[in-house]
Amino acid sequence: MPLGEFDLIERYFTRRGMIRKDVVLGIGDDAAVLRMPPGMDLAVAIDTMVSGVHFFPDADPASIGHKILAVNLSDMAAMGAEPAWATLALALPHADESWLAAFSGGFFALAEQCDVQLVGGDTCRGPLTVTVQMHGFVPQGVALRRAGARPGDAIYVTGTLGDAGLALRMLRSGVEEQPHAHAAFLTERLDRPTPRIAAGMALRGIASAAIDVSDGLVADLGHILKASGVGARVEVEHVPVSPAFAVMARHKERWSLPLCGGDDYELCVTVPPEKQTQAEQILAGLACGYTRIGVIEDTPSLRCLLHGEAFEPTTGGYQHFGA
Amino acid sequence: MPLGEFDLIERYFTRRGMIRKDVVLGIGDDAAVLRMPPGMDLAVAIDTMVSGVHFFPDADPASIGHKILAVNLSDMAAMGAEPAWATLALALPHADESWLAAFSGGFFALAEQCDVQLVGGDTCRGPLTVTVQMHGFVPQGVALRRAGARPGDAIYVTGTLGDAGLALRMLRSGVEEQPHAHAAFLTERLDRPTPRIAAGMALRGIASAAIDVSDGLVADLGHILKASGVGARVEVEHVPVSPAFAVMARHKERWSLPLCGGDDYELCVTVPPEKQTQAEQILAGLACGYTRIGVIEDTPSLRCLLHGEAFEPTTGGYQHFGA
Repeated sequence: MPLGEFDLIERYFTRRGMIRKDVVLGIGDDAAVLRMPPGMDLAVAIDTMVSGVHFFPDADPASIGHKILAVNLSDMAAMGAEPAWATLALALPHADESWLAAFSGGFFALAEQCDVQLVGGDTCRGPLTVTVQMHGFVPQGVALRRAGARPGDAIYVTGTLGDAGLALRMLRSGVEEQPHAHAAFLTERLDRPTPRIAAGMALRGIASAAIDVSDGLVADLGHILKASGVGARVEVEHVPVSPAFAVMARHKERWSLPLCGGDDYELCVTVPPEKQTQAEQILAGLACGYTRIGVIEDTPSLRCLLHGEAFEPTTGGYQHFGA
Repeated sequence: MPLGEFDLIERYFTRRGMIRKDVVLGIGDDAAVLRMPPGMDLAVAIDTMVSGVHFFPDADPASIGHKILAVNLSDMAAMGAEPAWATLALALPHADESWLAAFSGGFFALAEQCDVQLVGGDTCRGPLTVTVQMHGFVPQGVALRRAGARPGDAIYVTGTLGDAGLALRMLRSGVEEQPHAHAAFLTERLDRPTPRIAAGMALRGIASAAIDVSDGLVADLGHILKASGVGARVEVEHVPVSPAFAVMARHKERWSLPLCGGDDYELCVTVPPEKQTQAEQILAGLACGYTRIGVIEDTPSLRCLLHGEAFEPTTGGYQHFGA
């Protein structure tokens, strides 16, 4: 017998995962009731993933569950916020129990790892669409913003860029069938990004601006530049790539994907000169790694230089209704 | 030239509507940053509407914009919470500017009326799906819950029931073409429900349990009964209907729709005997009206009586993946 809506919610989402002390009332009423710690502001981000747009219709549901939470956690990281509570809105073509079991498995595994409690949601019939809203805490006055970069600030990124973009290109060209450790690494980077929460929190009061790299470095750094009213110079050969990327990327992708490929969910931050030593010490203590890739400039444009020569990146990031 | 994603957000959603003092950082960064008033808990609800499921594909976009906010505001009302901040996730098949202009018009008209600021969102390509998350404030310890009803408590509903269900049936059978004041009233009730925010806030500390009637009275009162571990007797002839409903309903709909039709977004509350006079005084001062329809009982089941005789309602509320 197929499960009803309330049975579904009960079985896969209610009373699962961790219990936080600041949740007065969780799933099962008209709204959740949540208690903010004193002195903290609430950071709120919402992201949607649609089948056939953000993931392939036959994508592993456990990865979808991981990723929709990860992209929202990445927004928390970009604000320097500590994640706390999530809500989930799920439209499903039909109540497929094995899909739900895998999806909720991927979701709750990451949620527990990050001390996040699912506090509410909505499940309905419809084309497969997953929306998560994330709530986090950030001490009053220290949230990392896009505005705040000043000429002379250094630009850093965490981890490596281009992995997810290369994985996507390989999936599209059918190379994913090839059993190859590098391909597996890249696919993992696309399907199960690691939100840089510790880096974001550690850079509170140190970074002058921050964003997570979801649409590609050029597009996302561009948001910082626009919000801050500044420009930047990026030394393209310093943009960090993974060993897997270095081996698997085609010649013409070598620079374009790390600059313009999306979905890496690394942080891009700017740091004033007097705080760079401190920032580098902090980042060196984290597992994700970091690289200095350029500097903020006065002239309001983004200049990419490859070994000192002007370099034109091929695309400016994914736009859903491309202009 | 078609608009890009960022232009769309800018034109129809950013820097529109009211500005609240408790919004530290609104739309335009990785997350919104919000400041809770001291002594308050945060109430959070999320609801999705999908084209072809929750509304007809050719539905008036202004009504969709109103309704997706209204159903979330109704959840705030059911908790006794004061609405404050909303986020919006919107999947659209294509960037249809006239649709967006009308949708955002309906959304912001209601938002301003209720002092709600849109603080964040996500816009992407996909089958038409609209998700809103609402945030409200409720003094610590006084949120209205589903659990809390006790034997002897009176059951009240605000407004009238069955209007939206009748409008939906008429739309489905094509009667909406008929220019009739009653039909227009009923359609307005379906398309533009009025969240009972003032009633919910006024009943803080007075109602023992509360829910909003979204799936139908029998289903939603059933949630109160289950959560509270009690039963109830409802006198069906007392369930309030509008003059339009009384004129337009077919004989067999006369009792079934007010009991089982969804989408009315009235409140159903229970009140202990010693607070009933106070509750009735409060509710009498509000424009929505109220009616006492029954009483909470010990035996854990819902008994519907029509002029003293047992009455079996025909359906138990809409379920998306019907059991």
